[in-house]
Amino acid sequence: MTALWLIVLCGVLSIVYAIWATSSVLKADAGSPRMQEIAGAVREGAQAYLRRQYTTIGLVGIVIFVVVAYLLGIYVAIGFAIGAILSGAAGFIGMNVSVRANVRTAQAATTSLAGGLELAFKAGAITGLLVAGLALLGVTLYFGFLVYSLKLAPDSRTVVDAMVALGFGASLISIFARLGGGIFTKGADVGGDLVGKVEAGIPEDDPRNPATIADNVGDNVGDCAGMAADLFETYAVTAVATMVLAAIFFAKTQILTSMMTLPLAIGGICIITSIIGTFFVKLGASQSIMGALYKGLIATGVLSLVGIAGVIYYLIGFGKLEGADFTGMALFECGVVGLLVTALIIWITEYYTGTDYRPVKSIAAASVTGHGTNVIQGLAISMEATALPAIVIIAGILVTYSLAGLFGIAIATATMLALAGMIVALDAFGPVTDNAGGIAEMAGLPKEVRKSTDALDAVGNTTKAVTKGYAIGSAGLGALVLFAAYNQDLKFFIANKNAYFAGVNPDFSLNNPYVVVGLLFGGLLPYLFGAMGMTAVGRAAGAIVEEVRRQFREKPGIMQGTDKPDYGKAVDLLTRAAIKEMIIPSLLPVLSPIVVYFLIYAIAGGGAAGKSAAFSAVGAMLLGVIVTGLFVAISMTSGGGAWDNAKKYIEDGHYGGKGSDAHKSAVTGDTVGDPYKDTAGPAVNPMIKITNIVALLLLAILAH
Amino acid sequence: MTALWLIVLCGVLSIVYAIWATSSVLKADAGSPRMQEIAGAVREGAQAYLRRQYTTIGLVGIVIFVVVAYLLGIYVAIGFAIGAILSGAAGFIGMNVSVRANVRTAQAATTSLAGGLELAFKAGAITGLLVAGLALLGVTLYFGFLVYSLKLAPDSRTVVDAMVALGFGASLISIFARLGGGIFTKGADVGGDLVGKVEAGIPEDDPRNPATIADNVGDNVGDCAGMAADLFETYAVTAVATMVLAAIFFAKTQILTSMMTLPLAIGGICIITSIIGTFFVKLGASQSIMGALYKGLIATGVLSLVGIAGVIYYLIGFGKLEGADFTGMALFECGVVGLLVTALIIWITEYYTGTDYRPVKSIAAASVTGHGTNVIQGLAISMEATALPAIVIIAGILVTYSLAGLFGIAIATATMLALAGMIVALDAFGPVTDNAGGIAEMAGLPKEVRKSTDALDAVGNTTKAVTKGYAIGSAGLGALVLFAAYNQDLKFFIANKNAYFAGVNPDFSLNNPYVVVGLLFGGLLPYLFGAMGMTAVGRAAGAIVEEVRRQFREKPGIMQGTDKPDYGKAVDLLTRAAIKEMIIPSLLPVLSPIVVYFLIYAIAGGGAAGKSAAFSAVGAMLLGVIVTGLFVAISMTSGGGAWDNAKKYIEDGHYGGKGSDAHKSAVTGDTVGDPYKDTAGPAVNPMIKITNIVALLLLAILAH
Repeated sequence: MTALWLIVLCGVLSIVYAIWATSSVLKADAGSPRMQEIAGAVREGAQAYLRRQYTTIGLVGIVIFVVVAYLLGIYVAIGFAIGAILSGAAGFIGMNVSVRANVRTAQAATTSLAGGLELAFKAGAITGLLVAGLALLGVTLYFGFLVYSLKLAPDSRTVVDAMVALGFGASLISIFARLGGGIFTKGADVGGDLVGKVEAGIPEDDPRNPATIADNVGDNVGDCAGMAADLFETYAVTAVATMVLAAIFFAKTQILTSMMTLPLAIGGICIITSIIGTFFVKLGASQSIMGALYKGLIATGVLSLVGIAGVIYYLIGFGKLEGADFTGMALFECGVVGLLVTALIIWITEYYTGTDYRPVKSIAAASVTGHGTNVIQGLAISMEATALPAIVIIAGILVTYSLAGLFGIAIATATMLALAGMIVALDAFGPVTDNAGGIAEMAGLPKEVRKSTDALDAVGNTTKAVTKGYAIGSAGLGALVLFAAYNQDLKFFIANKNAYFAGVNPDFSLNNPYVVVGLLFGGLLPYLFGAMGMTAVGRAAGAIVEEVRRQFREKPGIMQGTDKPDYGKAVDLLTRAAIKEMIIPSLLPVLSPIVVYFLIYAIAGGGAAGKSAAFSAVGAMLLGVIVTGLFVAISMTSGGGAWDNAKKYIEDGHYGGKGSDAHKSAVTGDTVGDPYKDTAGPAVNPMIKITNIVALLLLAILAH
Repeated sequence: MTALWLIVLCGVLSIVYAIWATSSVLKADAGSPRMQEIAGAVREGAQAYLRRQYTTIGLVGIVIFVVVAYLLGIYVAIGFAIGAILSGAAGFIGMNVSVRANVRTAQAATTSLAGGLELAFKAGAITGLLVAGLALLGVTLYFGFLVYSLKLAPDSRTVVDAMVALGFGASLISIFARLGGGIFTKGADVGGDLVGKVEAGIPEDDPRNPATIADNVGDNVGDCAGMAADLFETYAVTAVATMVLAAIFFAKTQILTSMMTLPLAIGGICIITSIIGTFFVKLGASQSIMGALYKGLIATGVLSLVGIAGVIYYLIGFGKLEGADFTGMALFECGVVGLLVTALIIWITEYYTGTDYRPVKSIAAASVTGHGTNVIQGLAISMEATALPAIVIIAGILVTYSLAGLFGIAIATATMLALAGMIVALDAFGPVTDNAGGIAEMAGLPKEVRKSTDALDAVGNTTKAVTKGYAIGSAGLGALVLFAAYNQDLKFFIANKNAYFAGVNPDFSLNNPYVVVGLLFGGLLPYLFGAMGMTAVGRAAGAIVEEVRRQFREKPGIMQGTDKPDYGKAVDLLTRAAIKEMIIPSLLPVLSPIVVYFLIYAIAGGGAAGKSAAFSAVGAMLLGVIVTGLFVAISMTSGGGAWDNAKKYIEDGHYGGKGSDAHKSAVTGDTVGDPYKDTAGPAVNPMIKITNIVALLLLAILAH
């Protein structure tokens, strides 16, 4: 009980930090009236988009709430609502800070790079800490309410189902937000670049381009709000899955509650270390932005090591644990592995997407011989970039399993995600600086300001790729945990002689053709989903190209600067496109487990044998979707980041610099990388989680 | 015994057909001296390349032969040699016909499209029937020799190991040939296009381009010889795996030999139906080339249905089978499913790569807005193109398993591959017409000739994608068969109390972390392998660009037509590059099972537990490599074909036709698609097979 209140306190601390940081951001100079006017347009567009997105999701959410309440009871439905509302809130608040920090960052960058970094990072940290804090509060408070106020057993079905539903609510928001936001932002970016940079020959963010405001709106709704919802969901689902496993493994022991509390406690302490870490982000004498971010990250990592040791010692001690064949010390070591996996994935992603290393340089070099070789090399790097992260994840699974079995893997994954506050902070400052650059350009600020914001933006490309690699990496490391949650649930229903599960005997062996079928079907989901996302961006971008061409044609004054483009029209067009396009791909992972279950059930002849076959196939599907999803997501996010930075590398004066043929080829690569890294790739992670969560809910519903 | 001789007779028939068809091709008019001079240069280049490639592979092969002979005995080593030599021979002979048919096809096309098609298809059919015939002869004769001359039991270890080694020999050639040939052909194609079409502004196959001859050489060594080795290997490995399964399932029954002979007999009868089918390929009144090919294919398919029914009735009858719970009729139905899967994959591939349907048209439409949107749409289509084939394969597994269990899946896969003679014929005519077009261009033949060869070539893009989809599809359908061969072998050694396998108890359940690790590691192989292939093409193309630029610089007369380019230099450069680049990626699948085995053995603490963990991980790896490999390969081969034909669609006069901006974008997409569809994508299939075969050999070696 005390532990839970302490964890809640940590969550509250994150909100206090967010309030303090917000007021400190808002106090900063908001720049000239022209800058404020531009920022105002971006803010309005972003808010209008998010209102419509949340309204649409809200309608879907209400339907699901009613269905869940009817099928699984009101407490489970309330869990769903909590997950959905808090996930949406994290994104919404973060974005609202972001659209106010952008103009202030531009203004601060007029004085110094350090000033710009400080403001932008503080804005990012607000989103980061809210994501971690709200997720932790939601899970902890609702768990505490069910267990202590309603006096339900912590491992009772209602508690487990309610926690799973909380994860489902978060996932549902996150897939819509990732996809909708991703389609919006990349539709604007790709369409705007094509018609502006390529056709009209005007620079990026030129105020004469009617798609400019939409592009800046996109940074906020996609990279900020979408990402926040995604990480909220990953955080919540991992915590929930670890709690479910603890409930099963330590059922009927004295330490049940402590073990269920452990992932939350690790999350709590890491919020504190993340808050401390943010104060270490300071530009040093070397003016290295990445160096400044690393200082914060390393501080958080080292403090977390100490903090987690303390939490484990306080909750369960370092000795042998009741009902388990491993010690508290082994669990601490698993936590260390979780931190190491995070560090290695960050380092590998920086290698593959940073301008200082072979991969990005090789894409830049390949740009000299044309568009085709740039894209070929980019695709090659994107595929290569999957190997080392996969090996790190494999090593992580092997080591933590040998230390403390499946629960060890779960603790490592939970620890990995406990750093989400800091990692999201690293990511969420990207859209702020990207916007600041746009505002600087549009408001005609001096070139040096743009240089500062560009430097911040290049680092942002890497940190954005890092967060995505980190999110999907946690899914890979946690693959067994998610599968185990399904498998253990299934075992529970069979052991408890639930009527529906009578005679069911699932076989998850690779010998079973239903398992192979499940693996293949799961494997196909990320591909089909990715194809839908890419096509949607292509369509949205095409619509923007038509719209901008129309405006240029009908108002020839725009290019002379005598007439103003209609920014709102482009924003509106994209809003409608993104909302429409996000629905079908989002339903793919929601419906797939259900369809596969009933299809295989029918094909295998129904009855207990049909059920066994169907449960086996759905289980295998959960792993299949991770096996290909991991590679699809990492290749897309790292490859896209590498393409973007290869362009920046050339713009820095290599291979002929801006305007050279190599630069034109690099712009093509950057365009291709856009939907890769910001639409299809990052949406794979919530897709995997949804598939898993829906499978768990399906079990609960069938048992009812 | 009689059955075996009849099967041998079918194999001999394919050779008789090849001899007849070769003499008929050689009798055709070889065109003007200028044409013969060009064709001579292509022939010399192709032969020189293949000599060096086979010399290099020969060295690797001798080492492996000695190692296998030492570890597993001379009969197993001889099996390896037979597989390697025949696989190489199929490619070598096919290519030698191809380099003589090209110029004759160009000459025939001067008279009529029908004449060109007839000659080119006949040349392709020679390769096709030699692939099927030699593979069938190799497996049948060596099996017959071991069983009837040496009096070994058909299910004895020596026979099984020798058959597996035969598959390994074939696989080894095929991965080198696919990769080496693929790097050569696409290095020449991409490099030649970049420097010729894009920089110098001269058309494809212009004789002033020093890379032109190399490009035509590449068509032969990559698309003809490489593809032949690949299909030979797929055919042999599938037949062997089915025989191994039969040896296990029907051990100690009266029908053991009949069941082991069944896949060979199906292969034999389908050689006859394929030969008959070739005579149905005739251009109808509609002048539809695809229609003509379909006539041949449908004739072969329908006749095969009848033939397979006859074979099954003759060998085992339609009634219940001894020692099994299914009937001969059920096996016939599995054969029908195999034919249906083939038909559906062909139809789906045509949909995704043909110029008449939405996918290719959507890429062409996306070309209007630029290079970036062309590539984005192409990538989206490439990913989407995996979904339907995967679903067809899933359905095939489900249906055949419910009909006759695992052996039913094996028979369906064997039937699918029995059509290889016809399918390869459809593919191998592509490089001939591609070359014919090149020769027509270089020899300055009238425009109409080029139009005929271009029409043949566009269909060639689809049939090439079809063959690759078919090869990888058979790997997907046969995934369980390949895994079962491994699993059953393992069970055999454990049951026979082999010293090394004492206490070993592999667990292939998805609950086992070693299984998840194996799936992830297997999943990473196609990605890493694809990255290596793409990078190698980029490097080779870059070298060609430099070389061509050098020649243009040093001999300014080339562009004026007063000086001759040094074609041989480009061929030589690519030969060295391809041979060098093919080694490391080819070793990846050879070494991976071995490395994974010993690494996991060590990590899991050695001893029987370590062995159990390692065998589980290696087994899972075999499925992991198929799960991602299927999607990587289909997306690459279909996507590449779609890009190529989108360019052809625009060249046919849509969206501004040749020279328009849309065309320039489409050329970029085509360039990107080149290494996708002709290097990395098709090499995934032999890679999967090698991983599987090496795992089987590893078991045999550990047991010794």
